[in-house]
Amino acid sequence: MNENAIRDILEDIVIHVMSQLGPQAAVPCPEGEPIAVELSARHVHLSEADALALFGAPLTPVRDLSQPGQFLCRERVRLIGPKGVMDNIAVLGPARGSSQVEISRTDARILGVDAPVRQSGDIDGTPGIILASQTGIVGLERGVIVAARHIHMTPSDAHRLGVRDNERVCVRVGGERPLVLEDVVVRVHENFRLSMHIDFDEGNSAGWSSAVTGTIIGRKGEHGLCRP
Amino acid sequence: MNENAIRDILEDIVIHVMSQLGPQAAVPCPEGEPIAVELSARHVHLSEADALALFGAPLTPVRDLSQPGQFLCRERVRLIGPKGVMDNIAVLGPARGSSQVEISRTDARILGVDAPVRQSGDIDGTPGIILASQTGIVGLERGVIVAARHIHMTPSDAHRLGVRDNERVCVRVGGERPLVLEDVVVRVHENFRLSMHIDFDEGNSAGWSSAVTGTIIGRKGEHGLCRP
Repeated sequence: MNENAIRDILEDIVIHVMSQLGPQAAVPCPEGEPIAVELSARHVHLSEADALALFGAPLTPVRDLSQPGQFLCRERVRLIGPKGVMDNIAVLGPARGSSQVEISRTDARILGVDAPVRQSGDIDGTPGIILASQTGIVGLERGVIVAARHIHMTPSDAHRLGVRDNERVCVRVGGERPLVLEDVVVRVHENFRLSMHIDFDEGNSAGWSSAVTGTIIGRKGEHGLCRP
Repeated sequence: MNENAIRDILEDIVIHVMSQLGPQAAVPCPEGEPIAVELSARHVHLSEADALALFGAPLTPVRDLSQPGQFLCRERVRLIGPKGVMDNIAVLGPARGSSQVEISRTDARILGVDAPVRQSGDIDGTPGIILASQTGIVGLERGVIVAARHIHMTPSDAHRLGVRDNERVCVRVGGERPLVLEDVVVRVHENFRLSMHIDFDEGNSAGWSSAVTGTIIGRKGEHGLCRP
């Protein structure tokens, strides 16, 4: 058997193996570092104008959140939708350019609002809702979203995990009811702290507890499937 | 290059490829047949005695369900937990040996009941709840569960899909928010019809619509991870 014949056989084997592995085979998978998973309860971000209209004063911080610079406010609001009302909703600060309401699909059904899955800040074309305090009322023309599941991280985290800003990855969440969430958005910023955020529907589906961690197991593949 | 040298090279290649594929590589994956995914809303199964105590008469069928022999009843109940109450809860027939209440984790939080994830019928050691109708009240000492996600199928379906009764498989659910659910219990019976059942938390997490299907992508692996 000469060298060319051997080369042909090896090429056939490599082509066959690659076809079995599929289109993602050549992409190296990131390491399996455990990432803290935090549940985001329904909450509201307010513009300065809307905060003033509702409370007559700027927002009052009461507790720092896991992402640096973000805080829980003393103020609470009522969400009034066409089908239902939810009371005592957390307001997160600091104030933003536009008010935004982040709810779960379960909440959306109760309120009667057809909220789309969006990244924070991407509120064009989203439905509105009524916000009320003890002393004020504000009608938002838009801003109600179901927050897309995402991971906050620093550029250094991204480098170590082998992922890029805005990339979509698959994350295995190892709770009592383990699952793999696809389409998890990577969000990279110097001021972020490494943490994955999912909503209560996702947390309940995973049997979440505070000890639960997530592991990036792959990137979104051409067929919408992550390969470990 | 002689035949033994070629054999050595090929063996090295095979060993290298197998190590890349991991321990599950040798297990053949079932076919990717789409399976209908149905959402199970919170509901109650009643024993004959509890149905009589609540309604003074046997259950009245109003609509057949997807699983042959199962039906929705005209009767509705109120669930009364230590923290909350839920009204207008569906009763499914026919009557069973023991009453059983199937709720989501979201419902469990509202009612204040620490319901474990269980297969239907497996209610030993589960918490109880109060059931009420317009005319009666029944205190269940046990029977409140979060139903484990599962797939009903016939023996012929199981043969075709390459799975066995009580096996746990991983299912990709391709909704607006795609995910892979691990620990999906296969339930095989002559009287079943092929259909996957998930609860509203899971449906909301997947961005479920009636067109959504699930695909078995693997068996539960040694590392708790399904390999496509």
